[in-house]
Amino acid sequence: MSRYWSDIVHRLTPYVPGEQPKLDDLIKLNTNENPYGPSPRVLEALRAEANEGLRLYPDPNAERLKEAVAGYHGVDPAMVFVGNGSDEVLAHAFQALLKHRLPLLFPDITYSFYPVYCGLYGIAYETLPLGPGFEIDPGGYARPNGGIIFPNPNAPTGRLLPLRTIGRLLEENSASVVVVDEAYIDFGGESAIALVDRHPNLLVVQTLSKSRSLAGLRVGFAVGDRSLIEALERVKNSFNSYPLDRFAIAGACAAMADRDHFEQTRARIIHSRDELSRSLTGLGFEVIPSAANFLFARHPRWDAAELSRRLRERAIIVRHFRQPRVEQYLRITIGTDAQCAQLLSVLEELLEQAPATTG
Amino acid sequence: MSRYWSDIVHRLTPYVPGEQPKLDDLIKLNTNENPYGPSPRVLEALRAEANEGLRLYPDPNAERLKEAVAGYHGVDPAMVFVGNGSDEVLAHAFQALLKHRLPLLFPDITYSFYPVYCGLYGIAYETLPLGPGFEIDPGGYARPNGGIIFPNPNAPTGRLLPLRTIGRLLEENSASVVVVDEAYIDFGGESAIALVDRHPNLLVVQTLSKSRSLAGLRVGFAVGDRSLIEALERVKNSFNSYPLDRFAIAGACAAMADRDHFEQTRARIIHSRDELSRSLTGLGFEVIPSAANFLFARHPRWDAAELSRRLRERAIIVRHFRQPRVEQYLRITIGTDAQCAQLLSVLEELLEQAPATTG
Repeated sequence: MSRYWSDIVHRLTPYVPGEQPKLDDLIKLNTNENPYGPSPRVLEALRAEANEGLRLYPDPNAERLKEAVAGYHGVDPAMVFVGNGSDEVLAHAFQALLKHRLPLLFPDITYSFYPVYCGLYGIAYETLPLGPGFEIDPGGYARPNGGIIFPNPNAPTGRLLPLRTIGRLLEENSASVVVVDEAYIDFGGESAIALVDRHPNLLVVQTLSKSRSLAGLRVGFAVGDRSLIEALERVKNSFNSYPLDRFAIAGACAAMADRDHFEQTRARIIHSRDELSRSLTGLGFEVIPSAANFLFARHPRWDAAELSRRLRERAIIVRHFRQPRVEQYLRITIGTDAQCAQLLSVLEELLEQAPATTG
Repeated sequence: MSRYWSDIVHRLTPYVPGEQPKLDDLIKLNTNENPYGPSPRVLEALRAEANEGLRLYPDPNAERLKEAVAGYHGVDPAMVFVGNGSDEVLAHAFQALLKHRLPLLFPDITYSFYPVYCGLYGIAYETLPLGPGFEIDPGGYARPNGGIIFPNPNAPTGRLLPLRTIGRLLEENSASVVVVDEAYIDFGGESAIALVDRHPNLLVVQTLSKSRSLAGLRVGFAVGDRSLIEALERVKNSFNSYPLDRFAIAGACAAMADRDHFEQTRARIIHSRDELSRSLTGLGFEVIPSAANFLFARHPRWDAAELSRRLRERAIIVRHFRQPRVEQYLRITIGTDAQCAQLLSVLEELLEQAPATTG
């Protein structure tokens, strides 16, 4: 607290990202990173970027990257916005498109950055409860609102809303912007980018952090009607002209171009997820159906915080949220097959012990 | 214009960065980039970063970099904030520290991003006129205010305020935050970081874009009292957890460590600036005394826009601002000695012609 702070600072409750431990010998299944490295072509493009040209500013509009994303998704480059990770893209979307007189709507259990953005920009919001199986109830959103945002698949549950349901939600909500946050869509869903031509109020946000193995490079993008993109550009150009450095632009372009690496790694992750889901079910876990690169699961006889603590003692980190309704669940990122096997083996041992607390 | 836009978007007038032309054969003296490349050790560190580790998020707190900056400047790491270029650092400073009931004060001729930030965050401001020689009059700032910000040296004039004057200004203004934007300080001034221990309301902002030749990498930082840094962290962590990617962190650490390369290149630029200033004066230009890596100059017989146009026809780009009081000036970045010689040779030819318009 300080008299020098702007009023808003006193009221902020910042987002807390998943831990980035410095120990190399941990199995890190806590922040939904890709267990496989980026495409070798991406690494090559990045190495080539380490040259004298770094003395020059990057292209403030990152046009090459907009064209790469547009080409991949079959849209016009003017329908693409790029930013420093999908978090920055989302931040600009909250400020540029989701601040209105009526409240913004999002699920009660979802990406915990959404209420933080609302706090930062003074946006009124209401949360709508997920159903008993953690499914989003699209009917609940058919009421006056200043915007709607949800991840698809949802986080941290992994549950997917089919595209036709999103289409219906858009038809019933043409008066305000609907943001579909598709950080995990490549692991099992169909992108709502297919709907942007028909819905001028739809903004789809994606990231290269997960399915393109580039969490360390910070690149996200949004696809939507030109007018929505223009609003994002106005805010971005009033904030920071060059949020993407030369590495981010070059690496992201190469990542969008290497479809083979992308298809192979995501297929491996989807396969491992389905295997792990079966094995966890076999160990007595209740596993929420996931279309993402993580599973959300609880064990009826074990307190989740306690299980998380014991896994950590065995050098495995998963994510546990101290939040009503989900405090008995663990969010487990899909690792390599060896990491999944190690997780299962440790869990088998732990579950043979008497639980310290029941959930 | 769109009904989907938040109110603020309709009122924004975004910043327009200097042109980043795609032609390789231009002499680019328009965006104050360093004519020399970054340290070879920086390039080495960057190449080493192109590895599998990119699948993992960077350190959200960039602690290594905070320590590198703190070590260089002899302060505690808790007094350092880092961001995606000094533009992002400034944006967060405007939102976190400069929004108050009383107006923010800054010079009428200064970095043109300041009023843009005010527009983005709804900050009331007043501009104070520079003196007849474009000098900042520190006495004018001794009045009730919600904060003070100015670049030192000022942009686009290049004029420096000595440290003792800044000390006096701080003493007379202990009730609000003073931000000293030192993007160009390494080319001829003494950093106000020397004053942060005595003034809890002082925030000093620097960048690695200019004197460290890393405009393409996007790294800036702020140094100040822990409480000011905490405000910036709160806003940053409510906006984007990881604004610095793995390359930015690794490259910036290496840049802060290589003092020899830094000292050598800045000495060369200072020498070239002083030479160019003498030569331009010899050609009849009025050159404002500069402590930066650029000169601000006018020719009494030539319209600045016209001269800029003719230089461009000869493949030399300089910056011209269509703004009252300075519309007859050109801002010329210091290039290599060969580039400065080419500029002088072209100017000599042009000045022999009859000017199309008089200024």
